[in-house]
Amino acid sequence: MSAILIRGGTVVNGDRSVRADVLCDGGVVRAVGEGLTAPAGAEVVDAGGQLVMPGGIDPHTHMQLPFMGTVTMDDFFTGTAAGLAGGTTTIIDFVMPGARQRPLEAYRTWREWAEKSAADYAFHVAITWWGDAVHEDMGTLVREEGVTSFKHFMAYKNAIMADDETLVRSFRRALELGAMPTVHAENGELVFLLQQEMLVREISGPEGHPLSRPPAVEGEATNRAIAIAGVLNVPVYVVHVSCAESLEAIARARAAGQRVYGEALAGHLVVDDSAYRSPDFATAAAHVMSPPFRPKEHQEALWRGLQAGHLQTTATDHCTFCAGQKAVGRGDFTKIPNGCGGVEERMAVIWDAGVNTGRLTPNEFVRVTSTNAAQLFNLYPRKGLVAPGADADLVVWDPEGTKTLSVKTQFSKGDFNVFEGRTVRGVPTHTVSGGRVVFARGDLRAERGAGRYLKRPAFNAVTEALGRAASRRAPVAVKR
Amino acid sequence: MSAILIRGGTVVNGDRSVRADVLCDGGVVRAVGEGLTAPAGAEVVDAGGQLVMPGGIDPHTHMQLPFMGTVTMDDFFTGTAAGLAGGTTTIIDFVMPGARQRPLEAYRTWREWAEKSAADYAFHVAITWWGDAVHEDMGTLVREEGVTSFKHFMAYKNAIMADDETLVRSFRRALELGAMPTVHAENGELVFLLQQEMLVREISGPEGHPLSRPPAVEGEATNRAIAIAGVLNVPVYVVHVSCAESLEAIARARAAGQRVYGEALAGHLVVDDSAYRSPDFATAAAHVMSPPFRPKEHQEALWRGLQAGHLQTTATDHCTFCAGQKAVGRGDFTKIPNGCGGVEERMAVIWDAGVNTGRLTPNEFVRVTSTNAAQLFNLYPRKGLVAPGADADLVVWDPEGTKTLSVKTQFSKGDFNVFEGRTVRGVPTHTVSGGRVVFARGDLRAERGAGRYLKRPAFNAVTEALGRAASRRAPVAVKR
Amino acid sequence: MSAILIRGGTVVNGDRSVRADVLCDGGVVRAVGEGLTAPAGAEVVDAGGQLVMPGGIDPHTHMQLPFMGTVTMDDFFTGTAAGLAGGTTTIIDFVMPGARQRPLEAYRTWREWAEKSAADYAFHVAITWWGDAVHEDMGTLVREEGVTSFKHFMAYKNAIMADDETLVRSFRRALELGAMPTVHAENGELVFLLQQEMLVREISGPEGHPLSRPPAVEGEATNRAIAIAGVLNVPVYVVHVSCAESLEAIARARAAGQRVYGEALAGHLVVDDSAYRSPDFATAAAHVMSPPFRPKEHQEALWRGLQAGHLQTTATDHCTFCAGQKAVGRGDFTKIPNGCGGVEERMAVIWDAGVNTGRLTPNEFVRVTSTNAAQLFNLYPRKGLVAPGADADLVVWDPEGTKTLSVKTQFSKGDFNVFEGRTVRGVPTHTVSGGRVVFARGDLRAERGAGRYLKRPAFNAVTEALGRAASRRAPVAVKR
Amino acid sequence: MSAILIRGGTVVNGDRSVRADVLCDGGVVRAVGEGLTAPAGAEVVDAGGQLVMPGGIDPHTHMQLPFMGTVTMDDFFTGTAAGLAGGTTTIIDFVMPGARQRPLEAYRTWREWAEKSAADYAFHVAITWWGDAVHEDMGTLVREEGVTSFKHFMAYKNAIMADDETLVRSFRRALELGAMPTVHAENGELVFLLQQEMLVREISGPEGHPLSRPPAVEGEATNRAIAIAGVLNVPVYVVHVSCAESLEAIARARAAGQRVYGEALAGHLVVDDSAYRSPDFATAAAHVMSPPFRPKEHQEALWRGLQAGHLQTTATDHCTFCAGQKAVGRGDFTKIPNGCGGVEERMAVIWDAGVNTGRLTPNEFVRVTSTNAAQLFNLYPRKGLVAPGADADLVVWDPEGTKTLSVKTQFSKGDFNVFEGRTVRGVPTHTVSGGRVVFARGDLRAERGAGRYLKRPAFNAVTEALGRAASRRAPVAVKR
Ligand SMILES: [Zn+2]
Ligand SMILES: [Zn+2]
Ligand SMILES: [Zn+2]
Ligand SMILES: [Zn+2]
Ligand SMILES: [Zn+2]
Ligand SMILES: [Zn+2]
Ligand SMILES: [Zn+2]
Ligand SMILES: [Zn+2]
Repeated sequence: MSAILIRGGTVVNGDRSVRADVLCDGGVVRAVGEGLTAPAGAEVVDAGGQLVMPGGIDPHTHMQLPFMGTVTMDDFFTGTAAGLAGGTTTIIDFVMPGARQRPLEAYRTWREWAEKSAADYAFHVAITWWGDAVHEDMGTLVREEGVTSFKHFMAYKNAIMADDETLVRSFRRALELGAMPTVHAENGELVFLLQQEMLVREISGPEGHPLSRPPAVEGEATNRAIAIAGVLNVPVYVVHVSCAESLEAIARARAAGQRVYGEALAGHLVVDDSAYRSPDFATAAAHVMSPPFRPKEHQEALWRGLQAGHLQTTATDHCTFCAGQKAVGRGDFTKIPNGCGGVEERMAVIWDAGVNTGRLTPNEFVRVTSTNAAQLFNLYPRKGLVAPGADADLVVWDPEGTKTLSVKTQFSKGDFNVFEGRTVRGVPTHTVSGGRVVFARGDLRAERGAGRYLKRPAFNAVTEALGRAASRRAPVAVKR
Repeated sequence: MSAILIRGGTVVNGDRSVRADVLCDGGVVRAVGEGLTAPAGAEVVDAGGQLVMPGGIDPHTHMQLPFMGTVTMDDFFTGTAAGLAGGTTTIIDFVMPGARQRPLEAYRTWREWAEKSAADYAFHVAITWWGDAVHEDMGTLVREEGVTSFKHFMAYKNAIMADDETLVRSFRRALELGAMPTVHAENGELVFLLQQEMLVREISGPEGHPLSRPPAVEGEATNRAIAIAGVLNVPVYVVHVSCAESLEAIARARAAGQRVYGEALAGHLVVDDSAYRSPDFATAAAHVMSPPFRPKEHQEALWRGLQAGHLQTTATDHCTFCAGQKAVGRGDFTKIPNGCGGVEERMAVIWDAGVNTGRLTPNEFVRVTSTNAAQLFNLYPRKGLVAPGADADLVVWDPEGTKTLSVKTQFSKGDFNVFEGRTVRGVPTHTVSGGRVVFARGDLRAERGAGRYLKRPAFNAVTEALGRAASRRAPVAVKR
Repeated sequence: MSAILIRGGTVVNGDRSVRADVLCDGGVVRAVGEGLTAPAGAEVVDAGGQLVMPGGIDPHTHMQLPFMGTVTMDDFFTGTAAGLAGGTTTIIDFVMPGARQRPLEAYRTWREWAEKSAADYAFHVAITWWGDAVHEDMGTLVREEGVTSFKHFMAYKNAIMADDETLVRSFRRALELGAMPTVHAENGELVFLLQQEMLVREISGPEGHPLSRPPAVEGEATNRAIAIAGVLNVPVYVVHVSCAESLEAIARARAAGQRVYGEALAGHLVVDDSAYRSPDFATAAAHVMSPPFRPKEHQEALWRGLQAGHLQTTATDHCTFCAGQKAVGRGDFTKIPNGCGGVEERMAVIWDAGVNTGRLTPNEFVRVTSTNAAQLFNLYPRKGLVAPGADADLVVWDPEGTKTLSVKTQFSKGDFNVFEGRTVRGVPTHTVSGGRVVFARGDLRAERGAGRYLKRPAFNAVTEALGRAASRRAPVAVKR
Repeated sequence: MSAILIRGGTVVNGDRSVRADVLCDGGVVRAVGEGLTAPAGAEVVDAGGQLVMPGGIDPHTHMQLPFMGTVTMDDFFTGTAAGLAGGTTTIIDFVMPGARQRPLEAYRTWREWAEKSAADYAFHVAITWWGDAVHEDMGTLVREEGVTSFKHFMAYKNAIMADDETLVRSFRRALELGAMPTVHAENGELVFLLQQEMLVREISGPEGHPLSRPPAVEGEATNRAIAIAGVLNVPVYVVHVSCAESLEAIARARAAGQRVYGEALAGHLVVDDSAYRSPDFATAAAHVMSPPFRPKEHQEALWRGLQAGHLQTTATDHCTFCAGQKAVGRGDFTKIPNGCGGVEERMAVIWDAGVNTGRLTPNEFVRVTSTNAAQLFNLYPRKGLVAPGADADLVVWDPEGTKTLSVKTQFSKGDFNVFEGRTVRGVPTHTVSGGRVVFARGDLRAERGAGRYLKRPAFNAVTEALGRAASRRAPVAVKR
C-alpha cells in the first residue's frame, strides 16, 4: 500500500477547519499540515477547493441480515463497498441472536459473515431474552471480543421484543461491564394491538404500517428506556429517533443532566410519510421500515435535535429488501420485511439538507456523521478525526459537486432508493479507507475482505463520571 | 328524617360563593336562597360566619382491605364514619380481585362488605389480569352494576401488576364501554429490581422503601399509561400522583389536548419523606405507602399542579394498618403492609395548606375536594354541588376554627396519624349526609348501614367528544 | 316586556347539561326546571331538540373606534346588534385614551358613544402612558365606574405603546385596586424595526404585515407581561393569543401556579395566513389585523390551549374597516388600518370547529364563550350562567342547523367577512337579551339603546387568594 | 524564553485524553506525544500523575473597573496574575463607555490600562446607548481592533441600561459585522421598582438585594434577548446565567435550533443566597453582585445546564471591592458596589464540584473552562487546545492535590473570598503562559506587561451557517 498525499484541501474536523495537506502511510494519517511533501511513490490526491474530513461512521446497519429464509440484498461486502462510495468508512452492524440463541454463538456467526467486508466494522449485539447464559455472554463479549454496546428491541412482540425485565437486567449488566445499552424504542404491545385492529378494519396495505406505529408509540418507549437507564445510572443510546415525541423525551432527560444519546437516520431526516399512501404497492412497501417515515413536521424536529445537540449521530438502518421480498406482505402489511437503504447516500443527503441550508456548520456535519459516533462507541480518536495517528479513513468532499441520487446509479444492491431523484450539492470525490484510495471520482475500488473488525474498549470518561456520581449518592442503611 | 335548615352561611360551590340558607328534606337539597323559612320540625343549623359546601368526595380509599390474612384497621363503617367527621360524605373504594379471580365475583364480595357503610360509596374495580372472562365482566359491571371506572396496578410484580398487554386490552375495552381507566403508576420491574438490590446492600429497613421507588419510577409509568390512553383515544385518570415527574407527564399530555386527569393525596401534599430515616422503626414503617412520601420540592409541585388544573382531585388512599401489622416487615421493608390513613383529615389539611396560604380559592377547594371527582366519575350533579335536587351531602365549614390533628382524638381506627401534631385552621362544624346531620361540633352520629351504593352511568360529555374526535380521524384504506 | 318560556330544550351550562325549561321574567331568569308552566302572556319559545345556553360574552371588541379621522364600520348599535344575531349578548369594549389624554375623560366619551348599544356592555380602559393623573383615574374608574380591567399595548411604537415602566407601574396599581391588567402582547420595537426593513426590501404589500410580526415577537411580549405580573403578584390576561409561542408562555406560567389567562380569537382559531399572499390587495388587506393570522400549526396549538384550559376565553377583536379604509395602506402596509370582524360569527365558528370535531364538549363551549369571561371579569353569575336570578341573556342553539357565513348575509356592517364561505353546523335560532327575544330564526329585533352599562366589582376570590399568598411571603428586614 | 518540556502527564483536551509529553518553544506548543526529548536548555516540568490541559479562559472579568470615584481592587496586572495562579491564562474583559461616550474612545482607555496585564486578554465592548457614532464605532472595533463581541446591560436603569431599541439596533449591527452580541439579562424596570419598594418597606440592608432581583426578573430578560436575537437571526451569548428560569429560556431556544449560548459563574455554581441574611453587614455586602447568589436548587439547575450543553462556558465576573468600598451602601443596599472575585479560584472550584462529583468528565471540564469560550469568541485553536501550533498557555493539574481556599492565601487583591474555607481536591501545580512557567507549586512568577492583546476575527462557521439559513428564508414581495 503506497503512501497518499491529499494536497490543497481544507481539513474539517469536529472542532475546526484548517487549510492543510494530509499525508497517509501504513494505513494511518502521518501528518496534517501546510506544504507537506509527497514521499516517493505516494499517490497524490488533488483536494483543491475541497474538504478533507474523517470518513463517515454509520453506527446502524444490517448487512446480510437473515430474514424469513432469505437475507437482505446487501451483504457485508456489497454493503460496505456502497458505504465507501458515499464516504462512509466504518459501520457498526448488529448481531441478532435467534430465539433463546446464546449471544456469543450468534456473534461468532456474524463475525464469519463479516469477513468479506470492504471497510472496517464493529458490532452491537442484540439482547433478545434474559437468562444466566446471556449474563455470562455479555461479559465475554465485552471483555474478550470488544463488543461494548448492546441492542434492545422494545417492539416485535412474539419475536425479539425485550420486555421490561430483560431491559432492566441487561441495562444493569451493561453498567457493570462499562458497556452502552441501546434501544429500538417502540411500545411493542401497542404496535401489536394496532396491527390487529388495522387488519380488522381491512386496512391491510402498507398504509397500515404507519397507522400501527404512531409517534406516541415511539415516544413512550423512548421515555421508558431513558427512565430505566436513569434509575439504573447507565447511559443509553436511542437508535433511529424518528419523531418529535421521542426527541422530546431525550431532550428532557438531557436537560436533567442524564447521559442520553440519540441517532437520526438520513431517511427520517428528509423523507416523509406520503409514500405509504401511494397507489403503487411496490413504492409504498419499499418505504416500510420501523419506525416509519413521519409527517414533515417531524423532519424539522429532528434537524432541530441535531442542531441543539440532543441528537448526536446520524445513521441509516441500512437493511434492503427487493420488491420480490417486500411482496410477501402484499395482503398483510405486517408481513412486509422492514427495511430501507441509505449507507451510500447518507453523507451527501445530510450535507445537502444540513449544511447547505445553514442548519449545520461543516464541523457539526463531521460530528454528526463521524466524530460523535466514534466517541460514543469508543472508536475515537482512531476513527472520527483527521490527525496524525488516526486511521487513514478519509473522505475528500466537493461542496460544490452535485449528484442526482438514483437506484440506477447506486452501488448498493437493491431495486429501490428512498432518495430517488433527489439532487444533492456536496459529494465525495475520493474515499480513503485503511490507507488506500478506494473510491475516486466515481470509480469504486473496494476490496473484498479489506475491512477489519474493530474491538472496542469498555468504560470511558462518561462511564467513569457516572461511577463517581453513583458513589456520591450511594444509599446507606439507617441504624436502628 | 326531619328537614334541615342551614341558616346564615355562605354557600360555596365550585363556581361561586353566595350568602344563602340551605334547606334539605327527604335526603336532598330543596332550596338554596336568602331568608328561607324552616319547615315545622326542621333541625336548624346556625352557619353564621361559616361556609356551606358540598360534602367531600374521597375517590380513593381502601376500607376493610384483606391483606396477608388480616384486614386494614378501618372497615366500611368505621372508615366512612371517620370520613363524615372530617366532612367527607362519599368515598369511591376499590374492588381488588385475587389472582385470576373474576372481577364480578370480587365485586359481589366487596358490595357485601360495604353494606355497613355510614356514608354513600361507589367502587372502582381493579383489572389485575386479562382474559375473556375479564372482558365479559367489565361489560356486566358497567352496564348492570354502575361500575364505570377500572383500576390498573403497574407495580406489585408477581401479584396484581398489570403488564402492558393487560393495560392495552383493558383500556380498549373501557373505551367501548364508556368507562374510565385509572392507574397506579409505578414501573413494577424497576421497583422489583431495586428492592432486591436494597436487600443485597443490607438496606432492609423502611428507608429502603423510598429508595426502591424513586420518582422516576412513577414518572415513567405515568407517561406510559398516558401514552397508551392517548394512542387508544381513551381518557385516563392517574391515582396518587406524588411527584413532579408524574405531574409533568400529565401536564405535557394535557397541553397536547389529551383528556388526562390526576389525583393528589392529602398526605403527599403536606408530608415529606424524612420519616423514613427515623430511628424509630414504627414511625418509619407507619409512613410506608406507595408511592412513598417525597422530598419537599415535590409537595410544592403538587400544589402547583392543583392550581394549574393539571391535577383535578384530592384523595387519601386511606388504608390503615397498626404497628403490629406493620411489624411484619421489620427485617425486610418489602414486607411492610403499604398504607396510611387520611379520610378524616383530608378536607381540613387541604383547606389549611391550600386556602389559608392563598394557593387555592375556596371555590377551587370545593372543586378539588368534591366537584371535580363527582364530574369525572359521573356522580355530578347529584354529588359535588349544593343546589336544589342534589343529595343533601353537605359540610358546614368554619374557616376560623382550629384543631390539632392527632391519633389521640381521631375517629378513624389505628394507632398512627401521619398528620400528628399539625394544627389546622378551617374545620367542619357539621356534616350532613343523606339528609341527616351526622356530625355536629365534635359529636359523630354516623349510622351503620345508612350509606348507599352509588351506581354510576357510563359515557359522558368527554367520552362523547372523544368519540367525535375519533370518527374525524378514522383511518381509511388505500385502494390499490 | 313579557315573560318568556323556553320549552323543551337542554340547558347547557359550564358544568353540566340538563333537560329543562327556562322561564324568564323582568329581565332575569326566574326558573329552570322540567315542566314549567308559561305565565299568562308569556312568549313561548320551542326549544325541542335544541340547547339553551348563556348568551355569549365577547370580551374583546372595538365598536365605533375612531381611527385616522374615520371610525370603524360598526358602531355600538350595529355591532352589538350583530352580536345578538350570533348569540352574543354582552361585549366588553375598549376605551382608548389619546396621547396623554386622561383615562377618565376618554372613558366618558366612550360611555356616551355606547349609549346606543343594543346589548349589555362593559369597558376595559387602556393605559397608554403613565403619570399621577393616570394613577388617580385608575382609582376613580375602579371605585366609582366599575371598570376593573385595564389594557396595555406592548406594540404600536410612537403611538399607544406602553413601555416597561408603564406596565410595571400600572400593574402595581391594578394590584392595589383589585383590578385585572390585560395586554396586547407584541414587542413593539421589533415590529417597528421589521416594518422598516420590509419597506427597505420593497415588501410594501400586506404580505409585509405578518413578516414584520412573527410569532416570536408575540411570544416574547407575552412572556414579559407574565413575568412582570408574576413578580408583582398580580393576575394578568393576555388578549388575542394567536400563536404557539405565546400559548407556551402562558402554559409555563400556569404550570408554575401563576394566575395567568389567555384569550383566543375566533379568527385565529380557524383562519390561516395564506390570504396575505393573495394577489388581490383588497383580500390581503382585509386580513390585516394584529397579531396577524398564522400558519396552520398555530391554529392547532390554540385549540389545544383551549382544551387544556391554558386559554379560558374566546373573543373576536371585532374592529371592521371597509375596503376604502384599508386602501389607505396600498403602498405601505404599515398604514393599513388593523382589524377584522367576527362578533356575529364567533359562537357558530367555535361550535362548528370545536364541538363538532370533538375538541370541546358542549359544556366547555359554554365556558370558553361565556362563563369563563364572566368569571374573570366579575360579571358572574349575573352573566355566563343559566340559573334563577341570572340576567335573561340566553341563546337557543340548534346543533344540527347549518349556515354558510358570508358578507352577503351578515348583519354586521362592512364589505368583507374573514369566514366567507365557511359552512357551519350549529347555529343560534333565538337570542334573548335583557329578557327580550331579540333574534328569532333569522329575524333580528335589536333595539337601539336597550343595552345597559355593566359596572363590575373589584377584587374576587382570585385576588383575595393572591393577597393571602403575598402576606405569607412578605419580605422582612434583617436586624443588624 | 527557554523551551519547556512537560513530561509524563496526560494531555486532556475537550475531545479526549491521552498520555503524552508536551514541548513548548517560542511561546507555542511544538509537539505533543510520547517520549519527547527535551531540547538543550529546556525547562522540564514533571507531570507524572497529573493532567496537562489548555489554560483556562475567563470570558467575563472586570479588572480595574472605575466605579464611583474609585476602582476595583484588582487591576489588570494583579487580576491576571491571580488568574495565572489558578490556571487561567486568558481573560476577556469589558470596555464600559460612560454616558454617551463613544465606544472607541472608551476602548482606547481600556487598552492603555490593560497594558500591564500578566496574561493575554481580549475585550468585549459594552453598547450602552444608540446613535450613528455607536453604529460607526462598532464597525471600526470589529474590523480594525478585533473586538468581535458586544455587551448589553438590560438592567441598571438611569445608568448603562440598554433599552429594547438599543438592543434591536445593536444586535442588527452585530449581525452585519459578524460579531457576537452578549447580554447581562435582568429586567431593569422591575429591579428599579422593587428596589424602591424594598426601601419603602425599610428593607435597606443587603437582604434587599436579592429581593429586588428575583429569578423571574432574570428569566424574563434572558427570554427577551433570545427572542430579539432569534427574530434578527443573530447568535447571542448570555453572561452569568444564575437561575433555572434563565437557563430554561436558553434551553428552549436551543431546542428550537437557535444559536444561543450561556455562561455560568463559578460563584453561582456553588454559593447560595444565605449570606445575604447574615447579621454581619460586611459579609452580606461582600456577596452583593448581580445577578445575586440564588437558593440551592438553582445551583443544581446550572450544573445540569452545563451537563446538557445548554450552558457552554464558565466565568467569574471578577470585580472586587473591599469592605470599605462596600460600606458606601450601608444604609441603602442599592448603593453597595456590585461585584465578587473568583478569577483565581474558578478552575479548582469547578473541577472539585464538577469532576469529583461525576457531573463532568475531565474533557467536559476543559470544554467549559477553556475550549468552548475559545471557540465562541474566535480564539480557537490558538487558545483552548493543547496541540502543536497553539499558544503555550497550559495548566498542569494535580487531580489529587487539595487546597483550602481563603482570603488569607489568595493572590487576588481584596479582603474577602466568597469561597472562603472551601477545600477543593484538584489544583494547578504549574501554569504556563505565553511559553513561560509563570506559576510553579505555589510560586507565582507573573510578569507585568507580559500579556498580549488578542485581536479576534469576525465571522465564523456559525455566523456563516446563519447566513445560509437567512438566505433560504429571505422574504419576497407579492406581485400585485
Ligand atoms: Zn430498529
Ligand atoms: Zn435497525
Ligand atoms: Zn396505589
Ligand atoms: Zn390505593
Ligand atoms: Zn390588540
Ligand atoms: Zn383589540
Ligand atoms: Zn453583569
Ligand atoms: Zn460583569
